[in-house]
Amino acid sequence: MGVVGLQSQTAKPAGIQGLVELVSGDMEKVNELILSKAGSNVELIPEIARHLIDSGGKRLRPMLTLAFAQMFGYEGEGHVILAASVEFMHTATLLHDDVVDESDMRRGKLAARKLWGNQASVLVGDYLLGQAFKMMVDVRSLEALRILSEASAIIAEGEVLQLGAAQDTTTTYDMYLRVIEAKTAALFAAACEVSPEIADKGDEMRAAARKFGLELGYAFQLVDDALDYGGATVDLGKDVGDDFHEGKITLPVIYAMERGSDEDKAFWKRCLEDGDIKDGDLDHAIKLLKDTGALADTVQRARDYGASAIDALSVFPDGPAKQALKEAVDFCIARVS
Amino acid sequence: MGVVGLQSQTAKPAGIQGLVELVSGDMEKVNELILSKAGSNVELIPEIARHLIDSGGKRLRPMLTLAFAQMFGYEGEGHVILAASVEFMHTATLLHDDVVDESDMRRGKLAARKLWGNQASVLVGDYLLGQAFKMMVDVRSLEALRILSEASAIIAEGEVLQLGAAQDTTTTYDMYLRVIEAKTAALFAAACEVSPEIADKGDEMRAAARKFGLELGYAFQLVDDALDYGGATVDLGKDVGDDFHEGKITLPVIYAMERGSDEDKAFWKRCLEDGDIKDGDLDHAIKLLKDTGALADTVQRARDYGASAIDALSVFPDGPAKQALKEAVDFCIARVS
Repeated sequence: MGVVGLQSQTAKPAGIQGLVELVSGDMEKVNELILSKAGSNVELIPEIARHLIDSGGKRLRPMLTLAFAQMFGYEGEGHVILAASVEFMHTATLLHDDVVDESDMRRGKLAARKLWGNQASVLVGDYLLGQAFKMMVDVRSLEALRILSEASAIIAEGEVLQLGAAQDTTTTYDMYLRVIEAKTAALFAAACEVSPEIADKGDEMRAAARKFGLELGYAFQLVDDALDYGGATVDLGKDVGDDFHEGKITLPVIYAMERGSDEDKAFWKRCLEDGDIKDGDLDHAIKLLKDTGALADTVQRARDYGASAIDALSVFPDGPAKQALKEAVDFCIARVS
Repeated sequence: MGVVGLQSQTAKPAGIQGLVELVSGDMEKVNELILSKAGSNVELIPEIARHLIDSGGKRLRPMLTLAFAQMFGYEGEGHVILAASVEFMHTATLLHDDVVDESDMRRGKLAARKLWGNQASVLVGDYLLGQAFKMMVDVRSLEALRILSEASAIIAEGEVLQLGAAQDTTTTYDMYLRVIEAKTAALFAAACEVSPEIADKGDEMRAAARKFGLELGYAFQLVDDALDYGGATVDLGKDVGDDFHEGKITLPVIYAMERGSDEDKAFWKRCLEDGDIKDGDLDHAIKLLKDTGALADTVQRARDYGASAIDALSVFPDGPAKQALKEAVDFCIARVS
């Protein structure tokens, strides 16, 4: 399933297998570390943490950290610890997001907050964030700590910004980009940047790795936003129309509003701003998004960011890591094609 | 106002003025740093942060960091940054606590979650925590980072433990101590321990400072728990009976249940476990707490911890800092006397 009419634009299906295989040895260590650090004498903590950790996320972010470490020939255990920290930061964000968005589902399973309540979700998120910082300290790199703590503050800032922008149909393209840079791209960027940092590769390599992560993060989020109106429920484990029901103003909606008639604008305003959603409104929204080319153009923007991400790789040596990272970009975009 | 019948046991009223004056120069820098780091382009963040920061908390934790730094003759700016980080960690915890406890009031003002909603409270708490870690990195002490990140994980763990223990009238004395060590004493201990660390004072001084903070933290929390049944609403800015209505099993309740008749036990179970609270139940609870000596004994335990805190100071050089820290202990306990 995918956005209708886009299949033909995809050169060929791309997979994430190359990346998975490249880092499989290190990833096993990351998984062990994650399970051991999600442990606690307080029963509820491992229970909730495992629910999320076992629920089949792709672990794309820690794989990026590991792939970059491998590309730079880093020898040590720092990349494994930082990869696990990055995944904990991400997991903490998911727990808090589900509370904030009042989501019922996460990756096709009941959200933790539906099983254990909002209170436990907030607190276990806090615990995982604390554990993430504890682990980072073990790597003994102040710069890696700086990169990841900065990402942590930026992610939260982006979520607050999104909260303010929700239900506000005057949200501009620029404001939308600020939100997704903060809530998604910043952690992708940090996950990539820490590896050249601990491998002592200098500013140019750090900047290029960061740029790769940032552009990939934009692409990833744009694809997510298109998928939210484009089917593929089973693959993504996410209900179609979540953003619509939460009043989130994403790029597809911004495009559709710009291009729509006064009647269309009133429709979006009623649904997203007033939250007055009737039967059939989601179908109508998807029709408008398709008819105005809003979904297709969102996917095109994702492709542009994906191309920039691949460009950023040019300074790195050719080899299996670089190849796997390229394929990961294609994979992220192919999800929607 | 205070717990009836205890005034006579207090030697003399103690104040926190000594501590306030001792650190006033540094505290001004801490306040400036707090205001600048609570800033953000995202409007809601400084708004909520300032609501909490300006709402008249005593800033006891950062004062402890500053007092210990002064005692050790530390020269630099690290103590100011760490003190601000400690206050941010505390503020983040308050924001999340109010969401978890569904509190309406905080320090006599409407809780942030009542003004801006649970969602914003969760996210702004996350932001302040991220900022706290960013600031800590600026001090460039991995050990200080370790101490504070450890505290961060422990605090969250304690809150989860408390969530599980809430409404459970089989909570034991030991479990209660574990909760208050984690949710209160751990941050007091960390706030004290970071100063000998950055002043390079060695393990003995670090351990003693940590012990002082830990014992003071226990005393502080026990007094809070007694005050929650003991009046003094105006001073504390907290509604009397909050813990009772939230079903929190605190030491006064544990003592009262141990000592009560079967009828009393059934009363506590109905109110705290079943949440079935009728008019007059709080008054009856306070009567039971007084008649069984549960409140008086809780305050006595607070005095014991306070005495241990003062003992821990014995390894430090006499002087204004040590004197101010002693008085701070007396002040914490005098709140209830």
